[in-house]
Amino acid sequence: MNTPTRGASSRVLLQKLRDVLANREGGQERLDIMVRVIAETMDTEVCSIYLRCDERTLELCATEGLNPEAVHQTRMRFGQGLVGRVAEHGQAVNTADAPRTPGFRYMPETSEEIYSGFLGVPIQRLGESLGVLVVQNKSVRKFSEDDLHGLEVVAMVIAEMAEAGAFTSSGDLGGIAPPHSSPVFFRGIQGQEGVAEGVVHLHDPHIVITNPVSDDPEAEHRRLHDALHRLHGEVDRMLDTGAVDEAGEAAEVLHTYAMFARDRGWITRIEDGIREGLAAEVSVEKEQASIRKRMSHMTDPYLRERFHDLDDLSYRLLRLLSGQRDDRFDIPDNAVLVARNIGPAELLDYGNRLCGIVLEQGAVSSHAVIVARALAIPLVLQAGRITREALEGDPILIDGDTGFVHLRPEDSVRSAFREKMAMRAEAQEKYATLRELPAQALCGTIVSLHMNAGLMADLPSLVSSGAEGVGLYRTELQFLVRSKVPRRAEQAALYSRILDSGRGKRVVFRTLDIGSDKVLPYMRPTDEPNPAMGWRAIRLGLDRRGVMRMQVQSLLRGANGRPLSVMFPMVAQLDEFLEARKLVFDEAAREVSMGHVAPQSLEVGAMLETPSLAFAPDAFFEIVDFVSIGGNDLKQFFFAADRENERVRRRYDTLNVSYLTFIGQIVERCDRHDTPVSFCGEDAGRPIEALCLSAMGLRNLSMRPASIGPVKHLLRRCDLDEVRAVIDDACASGAQSVRPAIEDWLYRNNITL
Amino acid sequence: MNTPTRGASSRVLLQKLRDVLANREGGQERLDIMVRVIAETMDTEVCSIYLRCDERTLELCATEGLNPEAVHQTRMRFGQGLVGRVAEHGQAVNTADAPRTPGFRYMPETSEEIYSGFLGVPIQRLGESLGVLVVQNKSVRKFSEDDLHGLEVVAMVIAEMAEAGAFTSSGDLGGIAPPHSSPVFFRGIQGQEGVAEGVVHLHDPHIVITNPVSDDPEAEHRRLHDALHRLHGEVDRMLDTGAVDEAGEAAEVLHTYAMFARDRGWITRIEDGIREGLAAEVSVEKEQASIRKRMSHMTDPYLRERFHDLDDLSYRLLRLLSGQRDDRFDIPDNAVLVARNIGPAELLDYGNRLCGIVLEQGAVSSHAVIVARALAIPLVLQAGRITREALEGDPILIDGDTGFVHLRPEDSVRSAFREKMAMRAEAQEKYATLRELPAQALCGTIVSLHMNAGLMADLPSLVSSGAEGVGLYRTELQFLVRSKVPRRAEQAALYSRILDSGRGKRVVFRTLDIGSDKVLPYMRPTDEPNPAMGWRAIRLGLDRRGVMRMQVQSLLRGANGRPLSVMFPMVAQLDEFLEARKLVFDEAAREVSMGHVAPQSLEVGAMLETPSLAFAPDAFFEIVDFVSIGGNDLKQFFFAADRENERVRRRYDTLNVSYLTFIGQIVERCDRHDTPVSFCGEDAGRPIEALCLSAMGLRNLSMRPASIGPVKHLLRRCDLDEVRAVIDDACASGAQSVRPAIEDWLYRNNITL
Repeated sequence: MNTPTRGASSRVLLQKLRDVLANREGGQERLDIMVRVIAETMDTEVCSIYLRCDERTLELCATEGLNPEAVHQTRMRFGQGLVGRVAEHGQAVNTADAPRTPGFRYMPETSEEIYSGFLGVPIQRLGESLGVLVVQNKSVRKFSEDDLHGLEVVAMVIAEMAEAGAFTSSGDLGGIAPPHSSPVFFRGIQGQEGVAEGVVHLHDPHIVITNPVSDDPEAEHRRLHDALHRLHGEVDRMLDTGAVDEAGEAAEVLHTYAMFARDRGWITRIEDGIREGLAAEVSVEKEQASIRKRMSHMTDPYLRERFHDLDDLSYRLLRLLSGQRDDRFDIPDNAVLVARNIGPAELLDYGNRLCGIVLEQGAVSSHAVIVARALAIPLVLQAGRITREALEGDPILIDGDTGFVHLRPEDSVRSAFREKMAMRAEAQEKYATLRELPAQALCGTIVSLHMNAGLMADLPSLVSSGAEGVGLYRTELQFLVRSKVPRRAEQAALYSRILDSGRGKRVVFRTLDIGSDKVLPYMRPTDEPNPAMGWRAIRLGLDRRGVMRMQVQSLLRGANGRPLSVMFPMVAQLDEFLEARKLVFDEAAREVSMGHVAPQSLEVGAMLETPSLAFAPDAFFEIVDFVSIGGNDLKQFFFAADRENERVRRRYDTLNVSYLTFIGQIVERCDRHDTPVSFCGEDAGRPIEALCLSAMGLRNLSMRPASIGPVKHLLRRCDLDEVRAVIDDACASGAQSVRPAIEDWLYRNNITL
Repeated sequence: MNTPTRGASSRVLLQKLRDVLANREGGQERLDIMVRVIAETMDTEVCSIYLRCDERTLELCATEGLNPEAVHQTRMRFGQGLVGRVAEHGQAVNTADAPRTPGFRYMPETSEEIYSGFLGVPIQRLGESLGVLVVQNKSVRKFSEDDLHGLEVVAMVIAEMAEAGAFTSSGDLGGIAPPHSSPVFFRGIQGQEGVAEGVVHLHDPHIVITNPVSDDPEAEHRRLHDALHRLHGEVDRMLDTGAVDEAGEAAEVLHTYAMFARDRGWITRIEDGIREGLAAEVSVEKEQASIRKRMSHMTDPYLRERFHDLDDLSYRLLRLLSGQRDDRFDIPDNAVLVARNIGPAELLDYGNRLCGIVLEQGAVSSHAVIVARALAIPLVLQAGRITREALEGDPILIDGDTGFVHLRPEDSVRSAFREKMAMRAEAQEKYATLRELPAQALCGTIVSLHMNAGLMADLPSLVSSGAEGVGLYRTELQFLVRSKVPRRAEQAALYSRILDSGRGKRVVFRTLDIGSDKVLPYMRPTDEPNPAMGWRAIRLGLDRRGVMRMQVQSLLRGANGRPLSVMFPMVAQLDEFLEARKLVFDEAAREVSMGHVAPQSLEVGAMLETPSLAFAPDAFFEIVDFVSIGGNDLKQFFFAADRENERVRRRYDTLNVSYLTFIGQIVERCDRHDTPVSFCGEDAGRPIEALCLSAMGLRNLSMRPASIGPVKHLLRRCDLDEVRAVIDDACASGAQSVRPAIEDWLYRNNITL
């Protein structure tokens, strides 16, 4: 293989294509000319272009050599036949004897059986197959590496043209709709509840490349280096100004970034593409596609992150080349952020300027999701190929409750959606009127409602939601959005600010719950087969005392004479709690001996998240200051059903008789020892679940601020003794879940949610 | 880069080396000549060879150009300085200005500071760094790609010579010991209990390459193609004879294998190496190393498997080339199998001819481990780099209880080890005398002891162990060792043979426990964040009825009129059990309607493996025919501690008060409903644990056959009421575990294990 020769061959092909395509208007005409020119130049008997007409189907859109009648008639599924195989795997097929190649499928209408030599390459844009470009010969001839390379470069150009709508302008193109025009519906998964109507704001805007073939490689080369020069300037400025706020990227990360921006291998590969006749933008995109391909095979999170940097640099370079402005932070009103994925720090940068978020990737437990929840922004995950469909400013509806996303919705969909939003707004008004009232049930029982928090941004809700305090402050969020461990003074200052914002209300700080499922950016992850049951939370804290001790010191200093409540996550047995508790009291004594003020009072509690702790010796319930049932984890271990796994996470109902019975036993055991017990977790914020938990004896629930209104509204209209009777009857009846009985009781009593 | 030029350069270098090395004897002399010749030929001022003197340390062993006094004095750790970096990452470093390259470390004794141009390549064999070969220049000159390639080829040759002991024959080589001579101790992890003394049998024997440089590329080329021809013959014969027994590889796999053997890319890359002056064997090994490198980055299990085939073919080809026999199945007496890893089918092929197994890789849950346990062969996993240290026939001691492996042990170690084995043998004799006696405790209570099984090979133990029946027959093992789903007739025949071997004793068949943690070879794994809590066992069975239904039909036909006991794994709630039970009875009715014989009796049970099932409605305990507590899974969910994760799997004691209390509650609940309850899992086979479980009320334990003797021996000497009193006291005392109290009680009563 010799680079100059390769470049020459594709350059000739691109040159010819550019000349003949310059003045054509109709999409079909363009395609017809392309196949003719390719067949001529490569001296093959057949050249055909197949384009995608839906997500998994290809249609023959132009051919030189096959039966012209078959155009817009012949279709195949991805994976079907050799052509379908090229599209499915995104890899070329090159064979001297197609009919004898496994997977060959005969399409009678095309009369292709007489062709032996077959070379098909995918028409791809950023890793997505948009179609297939094929050349065929009668002779049993295997195409050369040079032919393959030339055809790949042409396919790259076709992909850009397809994306720019170059083939669909005249509307004459069979089943192929022009891109980015029709309504599209995506069914993702629920990330954060809530609905929003807005306009698309792309995290990485589309760069539209109007002229994929270069007239003058020398000029393109100059354009590339001019853009690179500006890119270096941009990155250096980011480093110099240190214009990175405390929640943003750290200098260390930026240095890696700057290093990549000067990476010789990266630049050389882009230059090679230009030498072969591609426009600078296309060549950058070609390299970006290959980076993404390598990323997709990578499992090491550290390396993925580095490759992500390179991907991001490609995007910046593209933007500089195309002269299109970086509107990533120029956010429209009602912006719904659409991205492949996003980091927690980036999401915090957007902050409350978003009304919704749709991600193509993302797991329920990812850091960005945790932040989105904290910010209470509706979020849908795993929404198909939305970044490739959506354009900046497109109208979009998102429903975080169901995971539905409507891009460019039809009017009927939009009006149904607005109705749903109006009902929500109405309910919010009703909840606001309850803000100052207690969550007192009809039987007279009062349930304390607290809120969960994890960011400074959450604290204002303490007043607006009517919460009595913060029942769960997740301290790890502040660690997750940084690139190194915050120092003790920073931590202490933060905890102090949180207590300031709490204005004397109780705030329960949960110590770090980190481990291999919640890896901090500056910790190398360990590879655990089941991270949720791995070395995390208090296990990690007790084995590596340094971080735990520093956090406890910071909490003591942050309290600075005020009352302090601390609890430890994932306590599975008595001794773990005793050790952690001793550490707290030892540190408190040490702080005092060093002249710091002791907290006015010091409570040390435990999260009950493993079934084992419910069966701990009596000594545990006597020593612990309070117990908080961590419903999310407890439920997943109880049913052995991973809450991050879509296949099982909804398989077992929270109102399952077994689970409620277990919760009831825990409450009884705590009551027997006068141990205060609360419940935090997503279920506490669901009205029916909260009602049943209260009926099982819980008098303290902690939930997202937005749930306090709906829960209080329901509790105030129910008699907990009656609810308990319904639950007990259902349990005795052999029912699996008490949900049907409770729903029936609510219906009979005319109680709506 | 142009291949002919590259080849030419390395060929000249190899040619010269071969000539000067031919008649030398001393190891140091050989090294000295090599550095001189390389420096001359490449026209560099310095050439040095560093070799590994222990696992992480390099020693300067020869130099041309640096201070000769530094030889055997200068040492560095892997990762230290540029040389250490080459060894650490196994990648070349090529820099024009070494002192300004990050990581540079100045070694004053070598006077190297005056050298700027630096090119270091790893001396590697099959991916393992054995040393580093360096050339340096005063001028700020970056070495060419051609230099790099040439040096890499020479490094390959040095690696082969080091491995063949060519540098250590005269014993003059500083800290570098001759390979494969001294005792080595490995600390692996426990795979299967038991101790063994034997001799190493390498799964893939070392091929010793005596002459790594070729005299005549043409001749090497002919040798390669002659060997390939024989390789094709071998593989085709395997296909033709179908000499593959039912537990072995299936035809489909062999076809892939045959395809690979003719892979042009693979052969071309080997030919390239020969053209550059390497012996055919070295060139094959070079390609094998690159395959392994690619394998190590691969996460798709299917692709890994295919690459493993290619790796295996490389080995076969090496063997044919070197004329060394394939002694993989020519097994010495007392063979301890040593392998990087091994598949379940291959391990079954060895069967009972092994007395121990040591693997370099392997996870506690891997299929091979399951098979080794079923065969009761002592097994140690993750034993460092043992395949590179051990030679066929080396003496070896393995202790599956501790994970210790002694290769070429010293006499003192050997005698301590033999003492341990003698004690074990003595105990075995004692247990044999108890075989016909019941496990009756001093208080008169009789505990039924049953065995776990999963392979036909286990069934003979039913008689020899004194087990009353098979308490747990794991049906998935027969699925795991095949490459496609066994057909119904095959399954039925197998179940029938098992019942035949049981001679009327009760056999409890557990339906398939498969899912993403136990993936069948013919299922594409789904990527689950926590597979143990994922879509597995009854969840998968109920969602994909086909396989479950076929298995139930096979069990009914296999019973053929005899009594049948079936139980379902991972039942988490009542409805799951009801659905599965209905399926069994529906199928039974259908079988009868089709004219098959109904089982004499039909029991349907459930494994209690999730905490939730212990809290199921009473209806469950009334309907289920029997409950079997699956201790392994139940304990991991109870404590949320993954049993496959070394960091947490021993963190919580089975005799933890909480866990025993929970077990006691389950037993009480079953007793209240007259539901038969048993316990299976590893803990049932540990004498103290079995004693405590019996004291908590369990009257039926199922364990590995080898554990029945020790458990029975202990039970017969204890009064369960006394043990229960000790447990209750410990619980009330606030202790975390009852173990200290029980051990103390045993000691006071003079009861040994």
